[in-house]
Amino acid sequence: MSRAVCPGSFDPLHNGHIEIIGRAARLFDEVIVAVSTNPAKTYRFGTDERLDLCRQGLAHLPGVRVLPMDGGLVAGFCRDHGASALVKGLRSSLDFDYELPMSTMNRHLADVETVFLPTGSEYAHVSSTLLKEVASLGGDIGPFVPAIVLQRLAENG
Amino acid sequence: MSRAVCPGSFDPLHNGHIEIIGRAARLFDEVIVAVSTNPAKTYRFGTDERLDLCRQGLAHLPGVRVLPMDGGLVAGFCRDHGASALVKGLRSSLDFDYELPMSTMNRHLADVETVFLPTGSEYAHVSSTLLKEVASLGGDIGPFVPAIVLQRLAENG
Amino acid sequence: MSRAVCPGSFDPLHNGHIEIIGRAARLFDEVIVAVSTNPAKTYRFGTDERLDLCRQGLAHLPGVRVLPMDGGLVAGFCRDHGASALVKGLRSSLDFDYELPMSTMNRHLADVETVFLPTGSEYAHVSSTLLKEVASLGGDIGPFVPAIVLQRLAENG
Amino acid sequence: MSRAVCPGSFDPLHNGHIEIIGRAARLFDEVIVAVSTNPAKTYRFGTDERLDLCRQGLAHLPGVRVLPMDGGLVAGFCRDHGASALVKGLRSSLDFDYELPMSTMNRHLADVETVFLPTGSEYAHVSSTLLKEVASLGGDIGPFVPAIVLQRLAENG
Amino acid sequence: MSRAVCPGSFDPLHNGHIEIIGRAARLFDEVIVAVSTNPAKTYRFGTDERLDLCRQGLAHLPGVRVLPMDGGLVAGFCRDHGASALVKGLRSSLDFDYELPMSTMNRHLADVETVFLPTGSEYAHVSSTLLKEVASLGGDIGPFVPAIVLQRLAENG
Amino acid sequence: MSRAVCPGSFDPLHNGHIEIIGRAARLFDEVIVAVSTNPAKTYRFGTDERLDLCRQGLAHLPGVRVLPMDGGLVAGFCRDHGASALVKGLRSSLDFDYELPMSTMNRHLADVETVFLPTGSEYAHVSSTLLKEVASLGGDIGPFVPAIVLQRLAENG
Repeated sequence: MSRAVCPGSFDPLHNGHIEIIGRAARLFDEVIVAVSTNPAKTYRFGTDERLDLCRQGLAHLPGVRVLPMDGGLVAGFCRDHGASALVKGLRSSLDFDYELPMSTMNRHLADVETVFLPTGSEYAHVSSTLLKEVASLGGDIGPFVPAIVLQRLAENG
Repeated sequence: MSRAVCPGSFDPLHNGHIEIIGRAARLFDEVIVAVSTNPAKTYRFGTDERLDLCRQGLAHLPGVRVLPMDGGLVAGFCRDHGASALVKGLRSSLDFDYELPMSTMNRHLADVETVFLPTGSEYAHVSSTLLKEVASLGGDIGPFVPAIVLQRLAENG
Repeated sequence: MSRAVCPGSFDPLHNGHIEIIGRAARLFDEVIVAVSTNPAKTYRFGTDERLDLCRQGLAHLPGVRVLPMDGGLVAGFCRDHGASALVKGLRSSLDFDYELPMSTMNRHLADVETVFLPTGSEYAHVSSTLLKEVASLGGDIGPFVPAIVLQRLAENG
Repeated sequence: MSRAVCPGSFDPLHNGHIEIIGRAARLFDEVIVAVSTNPAKTYRFGTDERLDLCRQGLAHLPGVRVLPMDGGLVAGFCRDHGASALVKGLRSSLDFDYELPMSTMNRHLADVETVFLPTGSEYAHVSSTLLKEVASLGGDIGPFVPAIVLQRLAENG
Repeated sequence: MSRAVCPGSFDPLHNGHIEIIGRAARLFDEVIVAVSTNPAKTYRFGTDERLDLCRQGLAHLPGVRVLPMDGGLVAGFCRDHGASALVKGLRSSLDFDYELPMSTMNRHLADVETVFLPTGSEYAHVSSTLLKEVASLGGDIGPFVPAIVLQRLAENG
Repeated sequence: MSRAVCPGSFDPLHNGHIEIIGRAARLFDEVIVAVSTNPAKTYRFGTDERLDLCRQGLAHLPGVRVLPMDGGLVAGFCRDHGASALVKGLRSSLDFDYELPMSTMNRHLADVETVFLPTGSEYAHVSSTLLKEVASLGGDIGPFVPAIVLQRLAENG
C-alpha cells in the first residue's frame, strides 16, 4: 500500500491545499495530512482548531487522514507512519527553489521522496499568509477557502 | 481620465522610485503615490516624514499626487480613488514571482489591473532596505536618493 | 490620447492574447495589435489570414485596431503610429527574463515604454506554439481559442 | 494498481534518467518508459536503438517497461495505457517553468497528473544534449551513462 | 598578489563553505574568511566560537586566513585589507537574484568585484540555517559539517 | 601566474564583453579571449574577422590575448593553455541556470573552475544576437559596440 504525507501548518486550510491533497489522494492509497506546530512561530488558529478545520474541509476525500505533527523532523514523521513520499504543491519556480534543499535533505535523512505537484492555476496565487492579510483588512476571500474556514475567520476576527 | 496608484512604504523614497513614478506619469493622466503604514512594522521615518519626502522628491513631476494609505487594502484604495491600475516596478524575475499572487488577488478584489514596469537598469539594485543598511554603516548612497533624503538620513542618524 | 501597441506573430490568435488585449484596451484609449511577419520564420497561417483571425477574434473590443507590422523594429512602429507604450503579457518569470533586454533596448531606440501585464491564470499555460502542437496531434484546444480559429485549424489541417 | 509514464526521447539514456525512473518505480506499481520519436527532429540513435538501450539500461529495475510512443499526444498515450500520472525530473527551476504549461495542458486533455521529482544533485547537470556534445568532442562521459551507452557512442562515432 | 574576501556569518561553518573557500584559495594568492557579526541578529554560536570553528575547519587550506569583520561595510573591509574581490557561492538562481544588488552596490562603494562560484552539487542544498534546524530536531548532519562542528553542536545543544 | 579563459563566439564583440573582460583582467594575471567557431553554426562574421575585431576592441586592456578556439572542448583548451578558470558574465538568473550544467561538466572534465561575474547593469540587456537583429533593422546600436564594430556592420550589411 502506498502512503504519502502532505505536511504544512494549514493556518488555515484553503482551497489550494484541498486541490493538491485531492490530487495526491488519487495517486496514493493513503494520504496523511500532517499539521505541524512550530513552538517558535505564532499562529492565527491553535493546533486543535487547525486540525479540526482540516478534518472538516477534507472530509469528502477518501483515503485522507489528518494528524498532528509534533515538531520533530518531517522525515521522521514519514518513517514513523510508513510513508514513502512527501507531497508538496508548487505555485511557481520560486517555490521549487525554496523546497529543493529540504527535499534533498529528506532523502538523506530518511530516504523519503518528495513529489511535487503543480498547483492548479486557479489557486496559484493563494497562500494562507495572503488570505489572512486580505481577510483582516476586510477583503472577500470566499472563493478561496471552505465555508467553515470563512466562518471561523469571521467569528475569530 | 486615466488614473493609477503607485503603492509603497517609501521608507525612504529613492531614485528608483522616482524613475518608475516618472514613467508612470507619462502613461497615465494622474498618478497617486500611496504611502502605506502597516502598524505591525517599524519604519525608519514616520508617516508624515515619508509623505513629506515623497512630496518634495516628486514635486517636479506633473500629474503626481502623494497621499497616505491608511492600512486598508490597496485594492480598496484604488476603488475609493477611482484608479483602474496599480503600477509596480520590477527589478528582477524574483520581484515578479513575489508580486504575481497579489496582482491576481487585486484583480479579484476590485478589478484593479497591475501594470509592471521594468526598473531602469541603473537602479535595478536599489531598494530602501539596502540603502538604509549601507547608509547606517557609513557608505555613500548619494547617487541613489534625492538630496533631501540624504540630508534627513544624516540629521536623523 | 494614450495609445499602445501589442506586438506578436499571432499564429494563431488565442484566448490568452484576447484577454491581455482586452485588459490593455481598458488602460489605453487605443490599442494597436501589430501582427508581425519575419521573413526568416515559417508560419502556420499567412499574414493575411493571421490579420483576418485577429480582426474577427478582437472585433468585440472597442478601441482595438489590427495592423500588419512590416518586419522593421517594433520601436519604429510605435514611433510611426504615435504609441508611447508596448504591452506584453507575462506568463511566468521566465517570460520576464526573456522580455527584459528587448524592453530596455526599446526604451533606448525610441523612448517606448514596455508595460507588462500578468497573464490571467486560466491562460498562463497557453501559447500559440503549444496549441498548434496539441491540435496537430488531435488534442482538443477548444477552450483556448475563438471558434473561428478552431474552424480554420480544422479546415487547414 | 498505480501506473505512471516517464516520457522522453532518451537519445541516449543516461544515469540521470535511470535515477529518476528508479525512484518512480518505488512510488508506482508500474512505470512505462515511453520512448518518443518526433518526425520533425533528428536523433543520434534510431528508435530501435534507443528502445534497446533503455531496455538494457533499465533491466535491473522491477516494474519498469519500455515502449515506443508513436508521436501522438503523451496524454493520449497515458489514457491508452491506463496510466494516471506522468513523471518528470526537475533539474532546476528553469525546467519547472518549461514543464508547467504542458502539465496544465495534460490535465486538461486527459486528466493526467504530472508528478515532478527533483533530479538527484549528482546528475542535475546531465542532459542527453550536453553528453552528446561532450562525447563528440572527445570528453569523458563515463560517469554519466551506462556502459552499454558508452560503447554504442564509441562504435557509432 | 591577488587577495579575496569570503564574507559570512558562518553560524556554523559547513562543508559547503569549506568547498567554496578551498576553490577560492586555488584562484587567489590569499583568501580572507571574514566572520561577520550583526548586532541586530542572534547567533547559535558567539563570534569567538565561530572564528575558532572556522580556523579549525579551514586549517588544512593554505593561503586562507580567518578574521572577524566588525559590522562595517563589507566593501570597507575589502578596501582596508587590500582585497580586490569578494567570493560568493551560488547554490541556485535564487541566490544570484539576492546577491546581485549587493554586488552592484559593492562595485559602487569600493570598486570591489564580486566573483560567484557555483556551489558543488553535493552541497547545493546545505545552509547553516537548514543544518541547525535539522540538528536541533535530532537529524543526522554528519556528512555536511566538519567533525569539530558536529561535536560543538552536540555539547552545546 | 594566474590565467583565465573568456570563451565565446564574439559575433561580434560588444561593450558588455569588453566590460567583463576588463574586469577579468584585473582579477587574473592573464586573460585569454577564446574565439570559438562551431562548424554547425552560421556566423555574421568569419573567424578571422571576429578575431580581428576582438584584437582591436580589446587592445587597450593589458594582459589580454585573443586566440581562436578550434572547436574542441573548452575544458581541453583551458588545460592546453594552463588556465585554471573560465570567466563568464551573468546578465540574469536565467544565464546562471543555462551555464550551471556546463560549469559542473567542466570541473569534471578538466578540473577547471568557472568564475561568474555579474554583467554591469548598463549592459545587462546587450547580446550579440539582439544587437545584430536591431542593426539589421536599422536601429542605432552605437552605444553598445566599439566604433570598429559599428563600421564593419555598416560595410558588411
